[in-house]
Amino acid sequence: MAEPRVVGILSPGDMGSAIGRVLREGGLDVVTCLDGRSELTRLRAAEAGLRDRPLDDLLAQADIVLSVLVPGEAVALAETVAQAMKRSGARPVYADCNAISPQTVRTIEGIITGAGGTFIDAGIIGAPPKTGAGGTRFHCSGPDTSAFQALGRHGLNVHVVGREIGQASGLKMVYAASTKGTTALWTELLVAARAMGLERTLLAELGADNPVARQQLAGIPSMPRRARRWVSEMEEIAATLAAIGLPPRMLEGAADIYRFIGETELANQTSREPDPALEQILETLASIVQGRTAH
Amino acid sequence: MAEPRVVGILSPGDMGSAIGRVLREGGLDVVTCLDGRSELTRLRAAEAGLRDRPLDDLLAQADIVLSVLVPGEAVALAETVAQAMKRSGARPVYADCNAISPQTVRTIEGIITGAGGTFIDAGIIGAPPKTGAGGTRFHCSGPDTSAFQALGRHGLNVHVVGREIGQASGLKMVYAASTKGTTALWTELLVAARAMGLERTLLAELGADNPVARQQLAGIPSMPRRARRWVSEMEEIAATLAAIGLPPRMLEGAADIYRFIGETELANQTSREPDPALEQILETLASIVQGRTAH
Repeated sequence: MAEPRVVGILSPGDMGSAIGRVLREGGLDVVTCLDGRSELTRLRAAEAGLRDRPLDDLLAQADIVLSVLVPGEAVALAETVAQAMKRSGARPVYADCNAISPQTVRTIEGIITGAGGTFIDAGIIGAPPKTGAGGTRFHCSGPDTSAFQALGRHGLNVHVVGREIGQASGLKMVYAASTKGTTALWTELLVAARAMGLERTLLAELGADNPVARQQLAGIPSMPRRARRWVSEMEEIAATLAAIGLPPRMLEGAADIYRFIGETELANQTSREPDPALEQILETLASIVQGRTAH
Repeated sequence: MAEPRVVGILSPGDMGSAIGRVLREGGLDVVTCLDGRSELTRLRAAEAGLRDRPLDDLLAQADIVLSVLVPGEAVALAETVAQAMKRSGARPVYADCNAISPQTVRTIEGIITGAGGTFIDAGIIGAPPKTGAGGTRFHCSGPDTSAFQALGRHGLNVHVVGREIGQASGLKMVYAASTKGTTALWTELLVAARAMGLERTLLAELGADNPVARQQLAGIPSMPRRARRWVSEMEEIAATLAAIGLPPRMLEGAADIYRFIGETELANQTSREPDPALEQILETLASIVQGRTAH
């Protein structure tokens, strides 16, 4: 395809607005759709310099649309977009960048190609990107990934995983299992240690020179504010494993843990506030389970 | 109690025979019971210099008995010992050193004290010990841990966790979740990556400088030969978490993974053979799941 000039981003949360800012600073026109979005999302989009348009306008103007949202909303968005494409005749390239299983991404491929669109599988590994940083990798796969690869010339760090839909998502799934799955396990065992009065003994036993322990402990404070959207991500990984023929329960359990944390006040924080201390997180969670089991 | 002179070890597997050797080299007389044990276990016991006696003789001679076996067999052994104690009138101190939940250890406490014995909770963290090395920690807890602490003067690295039965086991549970739980998760995600043809891409993405990845990969080759006995250990951790009020599914899932690996030929290796390469483990497991899902 010709070099994209206009990129649509749905929706501009932490990740989406950061991508939009990088692409805008990289010379592209970035549009989004704020219908029904929160004040915080509107603020983020305005700060990132994204233009707000109704969905039909966005699809008519954009050369490529990036779907970047909570994994559990990915299919519904694709259906909304496919209906709008059929209605309006707009045919942007649609790249699903969400943390979803290869199975779910193939479902979305069917929805988009069924409406006449071109589909690209994509997976984002890393924090919301910043211009000039490049640490966040944007993996893509599919028979024709050229429109997504073009974004690599406007500030994103793009890698092509292969020619099949499902490869970029599959990579995202196993990578997320290694990071967020491990964080779920370590959060749970630290809360258990604290609830049993054994947290200090455990930390001494793990040792300050244990790089796994150090990295896991450091990763917990930024987790609670993201726990709610990690529930469906863990469920997507579980589905990925089950489809391969591997037992899904570890990742279903990780979803349980993020669901529990997502129901606490800790999950109400935003990325604009300082993260709570590890100590505060463990104390809050241990107090809740101890309050429950005491009754 | 008086300084122990005779220690009973049930049973002398990899861990039990190593403990027996250290204590024997530390000046104690160590007896075991090989009734119904495998040839490999008999060989290990002979090499460690442990005396073989029928159970009733062992209980009559020993000042302290250490229960060291597969977690799933801990309760049954305690019942056998309690019956023998009632029958013979022998009253050695009984220390349960197994990887079991605080709930299970309290059940065993009831069985032993019900037969008139003194009970100590213990938990072993580390590899089978060697004389002079000291890296393996023997945690104990209970109202009177003096008999177990005395073993610290004969070669074991003993720590007292507290005065309650369940504390040493609780520590073992959360520590084992951090090591064996994480190993289960990483083995599974690496097998998934290989089955999807994404293993190299994942390893590149994880990065050679990632200390968590490096440590996890290094820990996998010695796992398959221990996978079968880790199934019940993971189930004991799941029970520990459930009793606290935390979701148990991550650890139930870890049990699923070790059950799967335990059913493969990889689990037939012994500690006397060189561990298989990571490559071979992943290939074997990926081939099995791919063979299953292809049908």
